Amino acid sequence: MKQYYTTDAWSIIEEGFNPDMALSSESIFSLGNGRMGQRANFEEGYSGKTLLGNYVAGIYYPDKTRVGWWKNGYPEYFAKVLNAANWIGISPIVNDAPLDLAEAKVSDFRRELNMKEGTLHRSFIAEMKDGTKLRVDAKRFLSMTDDESAVIRYSVKSLNYTGDIKFRVSIDGDIINQDSNYDEKFWDEVAKEVGNDEAYLTLKTKKLDFQVCTAQKVAVTKNGSKHAFDSDKTEREKYVEHHLTVPMSQDDEVVIYKFVANISSENHPKDGLMKRAAEVLQHSVSKGFETMLEEQRKAWAKRWEMNDIEIKGDVAAQQGIRFNIFQLNQTYTGEDARLNIGPKGFTGEKYGGSTYWDTEAYCLPFYMLTAGKEVARNLLLYRYRHLPKAIENAEKLGFKDGAALYPMVTMNGEECHNEWEITFEEIHRNGAIAYAVYNYINHTGDEAYLKEGGLEVLLGISRFWSQRVHWSEEKKAFVMLGVTGPNEYENNVNNNWYTNYIAKWTLRYTLECLEKVKGDASFWNAFTAKTRFGGADETKRWEAIVADLHEPRMKDSKVYLQQDGFLDKDLRSAADLDPAERPINQHWSWDRILRSVFIKQADVLQGMYFFEDHFDEETLRDNFDFYEPKTVHESSLSPCVHSVLAAKLGKDEKALEMYLRTARLDLDDYNNEADEGLHITSMAGSWIALVEGFGGKRVVDGVLSLDPMLPKGWESYRFNMVYRGVVISVEVTRDEVKTASRSEGELELIIYGKPYTLGAMKTISVSR
Amino acid sequence: MKQYYTTDAWSIIEEGFNPDMALSSESIFSLGNGRMGQRANFEEGYSGKTLLGNYVAGIYYPDKTRVGWWKNGYPEYFAKVLNAANWIGISPIVNDAPLDLAEAKVSDFRRELNMKEGTLHRSFIAEMKDGTKLRVDAKRFLSMTDDESAVIRYSVKSLNYTGDIKFRVSIDGDIINQDSNYDEKFWDEVAKEVGNDEAYLTLKTKKLDFQVCTAQKVAVTKNGSKHAFDSDKTEREKYVEHHLTVPMSQDDEVVIYKFVANISSENHPKDGLMKRAAEVLQHSVSKGFETMLEEQRKAWAKRWEMNDIEIKGDVAAQQGIRFNIFQLNQTYTGEDARLNIGPKGFTGEKYGGSTYWDTEAYCLPFYMLTAGKEVARNLLLYRYRHLPKAIENAEKLGFKDGAALYPMVTMNGEECHNEWEITFEEIHRNGAIAYAVYNYINHTGDEAYLKEGGLEVLLGISRFWSQRVHWSEEKKAFVMLGVTGPNEYENNVNNNWYTNYIAKWTLRYTLECLEKVKGDASFWNAFTAKTRFGGADETKRWEAIVADLHEPRMKDSKVYLQQDGFLDKDLRSAADLDPAERPINQHWSWDRILRSVFIKQADVLQGMYFFEDHFDEETLRDNFDFYEPKTVHESSLSPCVHSVLAAKLGKDEKALEMYLRTARLDLDDYNNEADEGLHITSMAGSWIALVEGFGGKRVVDGVLSLDPMLPKGWESYRFNMVYRGVVISVEVTRDEVKTASRSEGELELIIYGKPYTLGAMKTISVSR
Repeated sequence: MKQYYTTDAWSIIEEGFNPDMALSSESIFSLGNGRMGQRANFEEGYSGKTLLGNYVAGIYYPDKTRVGWWKNGYPEYFAKVLNAANWIGISPIVNDAPLDLAEAKVSDFRRELNMKEGTLHRSFIAEMKDGTKLRVDAKRFLSMTDDESAVIRYSVKSLNYTGDIKFRVSIDGDIINQDSNYDEKFWDEVAKEVGNDEAYLTLKTKKLDFQVCTAQKVAVTKNGSKHAFDSDKTEREKYVEHHLTVPMSQDDEVVIYKFVANISSENHPKDGLMKRAAEVLQHSVSKGFETMLEEQRKAWAKRWEMNDIEIKGDVAAQQGIRFNIFQLNQTYTGEDARLNIGPKGFTGEKYGGSTYWDTEAYCLPFYMLTAGKEVARNLLLYRYRHLPKAIENAEKLGFKDGAALYPMVTMNGEECHNEWEITFEEIHRNGAIAYAVYNYINHTGDEAYLKEGGLEVLLGISRFWSQRVHWSEEKKAFVMLGVTGPNEYENNVNNNWYTNYIAKWTLRYTLECLEKVKGDASFWNAFTAKTRFGGADETKRWEAIVADLHEPRMKDSKVYLQQDGFLDKDLRSAADLDPAERPINQHWSWDRILRSVFIKQADVLQGMYFFEDHFDEETLRDNFDFYEPKTVHESSLSPCVHSVLAAKLGKDEKALEMYLRTARLDLDDYNNEADEGLHITSMAGSWIALVEGFGGKRVVDGVLSLDPMLPKGWESYRFNMVYRGVVISVEVTRDEVKTASRSEGELELIIYGKPYTLGAMKTISVSR
Repeated sequence: MKQYYTTDAWSIIEEGFNPDMALSSESIFSLGNGRMGQRANFEEGYSGKTLLGNYVAGIYYPDKTRVGWWKNGYPEYFAKVLNAANWIGISPIVNDAPLDLAEAKVSDFRRELNMKEGTLHRSFIAEMKDGTKLRVDAKRFLSMTDDESAVIRYSVKSLNYTGDIKFRVSIDGDIINQDSNYDEKFWDEVAKEVGNDEAYLTLKTKKLDFQVCTAQKVAVTKNGSKHAFDSDKTEREKYVEHHLTVPMSQDDEVVIYKFVANISSENHPKDGLMKRAAEVLQHSVSKGFETMLEEQRKAWAKRWEMNDIEIKGDVAAQQGIRFNIFQLNQTYTGEDARLNIGPKGFTGEKYGGSTYWDTEAYCLPFYMLTAGKEVARNLLLYRYRHLPKAIENAEKLGFKDGAALYPMVTMNGEECHNEWEITFEEIHRNGAIAYAVYNYINHTGDEAYLKEGGLEVLLGISRFWSQRVHWSEEKKAFVMLGVTGPNEYENNVNNNWYTNYIAKWTLRYTLECLEKVKGDASFWNAFTAKTRFGGADETKRWEAIVADLHEPRMKDSKVYLQQDGFLDKDLRSAADLDPAERPINQHWSWDRILRSVFIKQADVLQGMYFFEDHFDEETLRDNFDFYEPKTVHESSLSPCVHSVLAAKLGKDEKALEMYLRTARLDLDDYNNEADEGLHITSMAGSWIALVEGFGGKRVVDGVLSLDPMLPKGWESYRFNMVYRGVVISVEVTRDEVKTASRSEGELELIIYGKPYTLGAMKTISVSR
């Protein structure tokens, strides 16, 4: 754990120029607005270590899979999030030498990600090789108001130089993807146009022909006054540039305003991209930088009003949770049901920008309870729309009769990952997708969703489970062989308890849901016809499986076994590991990891988290005490679950430790991988750790309850939540829990086990 | 099973031109002489489906590995056998159109692989598009006498054409490797030279800089008389060619003699390759085609004298075994201890031409008992020389103190395969390498080999096993988790019985061997110093493991379980499978295969085969009856083991079925993959099936015994063997077993359980 950035309640701040941290900082200071996003690359370019990252939502490339030996059933492609045209380029050139922080002497370097207003601000003094000293001050943001629009204010002040400074203001579409399987470039040029202060570059992706028009409009001031210019234009394949010259004297300051539009064929007809870009640019310019900035502040203020979590008494914890909430909002706004949340969001290429089970298992609660029901519903509909492809995917693997296996990794509903142990075996994702339907209805009461897609999804998944298990004569039980559970430090195990449990639960829940809706004859007839549902003939086997699906368990104990044979392992504790060998995934060979007892992420405990109300406290405690010491948390998705359970079990210290580990995972780079991008989906886990862990928020049978604790050293914390239409704010101090309603309408809820009715716009105070 | 080739005792014959079989036939009709080899590509080229294959022993390329997600410990490269310069090119051109069987009307096509004399003969009539009819008769061989030398006699007779025929006689080094990971070409040109009738092309491989000079010398006759010619020469990058023109009238016959040399830097200094090539060519030309052919016949006759197995009454069985013996001799002659036996020999690219455990488990007995002790010793020394790299490999995976893990796949001692479930987990190969030491000493009595390398190898392997197991409190036994056994239709299983058993055996055998040699103080001191052997401190744990290593077993039964939990599977029989879904590896997804009960190749039964004398007959029978029905034999290495056990258990029909499946695996293309090349290493299994299965040959505690049966429908069979310096010939007829000595020296042996002494040059007849 490295505490590198300045601790601050509302900002991430880097003081001093540190090339060793360049890649990590590019990730940390990333910007996004749900429609596009960007790593914190330097406007002026950088010849040191850098990973250029400019992403446009929904745009990907189906790269050829790269495998050693092909295995039947492998997907044809591996989807890559595509690095798109680099539109930030503003490069000052003095005496033919471009400014490059890898070459210059840099002082007074400061970088601030202002989360309150949603801007990135960077300033420094650079002494170039010829002695020229410039002070640079650059501020940029991706507009939350106009989500196709971005703007940069790039100021250069001469500290000792008199003469011309040239500026290259560019859009560069000739970019590479680090994660390309075969070093291919993925974009071709469609069109370009360059005027005196405007430039347009339209590119299309290979194979799938996504098109993006990226455009810039440039304005310049010198010492505060508008500076007219005649620009030279450079055009080459996939590249456009304005080239301006500004005469400077010492202490002169020139400011380049660069207004940018990124227009995607996902949202506009291809033949109208440039026209739309011109409109967006015009709109931005007419507002001007300051107005846009003001709008940005307001847009973020509005988001924070609902989203913010305030922590008093622990600035690091405060900064962590705000950073997580900020990044989640930058990644996904919930307005477009075609989009989803990639594990790295817009901050890196790894994991291909695709959708994983993270969405259902971790992200849904955050968006559902802060952005509201419609956003959560969009996340569910995303999977409903992919159901035909999930059925096709299952068929490819030998299943039939409408069984659905959702992909582990997807862009468009098709599986696009290519490790057999994940693609074919990590089938527990199907369970999380079923659980999300339950979780959504439990929180929102929106049972209508069952008829609008939910039940079809549940049926497809139940059919899959039903075919995936078989009767074992040996065990006199149904068994599920050859799976990989959430703990990916095991592969191809038998009877992973978590997977078996969620399969059993899915079947039971689907049976209940079928009962609920079958009275609606017109729905029922359409549903059974469409899905060829076999009624009791089909569900008889489900009932048998619910009754007799094997759950491995330790003898004379309440501990469920992660899988058959787990106790044969060398039962060591992570505390015994040599710190120099951690994270083990960076030090141990894969076979050694596989046969070791060490657990990458919550597995049995993931099940205890989802289904906490199915187990008595002793069971929860015994399982936690057995598994927590063996867990190395080398998945970002692990600590949050442990934090919630620890809080539940009164293990306050462990709960806080795990909370900090999830909330500051990237800021403090626990797993030594922030350089590749941020762990966006696990950031929702931080929110869960706080709200469900510390806040003890639960919803059982549709009833909201709170059971808050206050972590040691904290003065108080406050979070907001929208529950069944009522916006509440929960503040936990040393002495009391104040639950305030900001809405019309009453809300029944339970605090510390006692029922209350929260009146409209009222506050309830309960002593702790 | 397709019976496509004409059944013949000494030849493989194809009658009629069948483009659908082109790839398979290229494999089947392959030629080799241990030093080089070649698929049966057409001299004149072919625009239809073809896989060019020309291989020079020992030459490979360390291609970049191709994996999805890199796992710690993966090898850096994947070794590829390299397709080398294509030296067979002789292309007749009529009116500017080259002869191409994909374009011409072909009749009277006949191809014969004459195994008695080691030649490939092909003849056909081609009617070209312009109506020209030619009769072509081509014969070629790779000399067993001069192993750097090959020759082609290519005759063209005009059936209706009068005019010039041009001939392109070429060496083409601009070849591709089908199995290239990144479509790279692997050869660069070093030098070339073309004279009137001679041409030289020297190429070097990228990265490792192997060099090969390929040279040709051309002679021509017309209607039986020498035809002088002035050739045009074509040279381009990596290509040399003579271009001759011969005026023809109807019924004229022109014969091109192409003498070829392939000279490798593995055997000669790089700066002397061309000189050596010129010598080899000169030597060949001075002998002439007919003399070389006569030598070839004699060389093969000499081999057959020792190797041949004669079967009367079943021509298909006869053809099968001769084809296997022929290919084994073409692949490896045992003269060069740097070489080994790749699974496809010189017949294809798949499996990279590398060395697998096949050598020790399958090939060693054949070479040891037909080619003799020195050849077998060379195969053992190959691994001894790789011991330091095996220790390095184990270190890479976290082992220490001299533990050795031999690679699953290797060219030079380094691991060069890149599937974790094979590379990291298929560690049973270590057991086969230890077993080979035992097997060699048991057969040859050469205990001196222990001191000359054998014991060091055993120690390294024992150290590995000792570290690889751990004590399970749950089982109160040592366990070995996370392995893949010989049955590759399972991955990452616990306590694979075969692996555990061979590990236990290795430790016990190593302990015995240490006892045997420790009296030799000078050896012992050097050995313990070199290996830092810890004596009793080290072997105490071994003894504990031997006493308590878990062997999974069916309750109240003699059946050992392939692995923990095996009985949880759906216990179906291969006979229940839909024939349309076989082989399952071409129809089922990988996850389905993994969780199914179906066994790719002998696993528990492999152990029963190696250690048959450790088990009573009931145990053998119960295990055979349990596993055989579940085995789909989709590895070529499987049926032979089943055949031996079936014969032992009196299951004569099954023994014959399995024998035919192994002996005619490629000829009848059981697994639908002969197009990729032949299953060379499993051909040694055919020999085992016959000699150990039908012949009932065993060696227990150094004593040879025979227990022959005669398969149904066979009149008799006869095989030869060299045992402890005595060459014997065993003939089994309906009525008797005749064992004849061809050597000086007496031999004690057991026939049908009774001891005999076979006198020098004497025959023993025993009634059946």
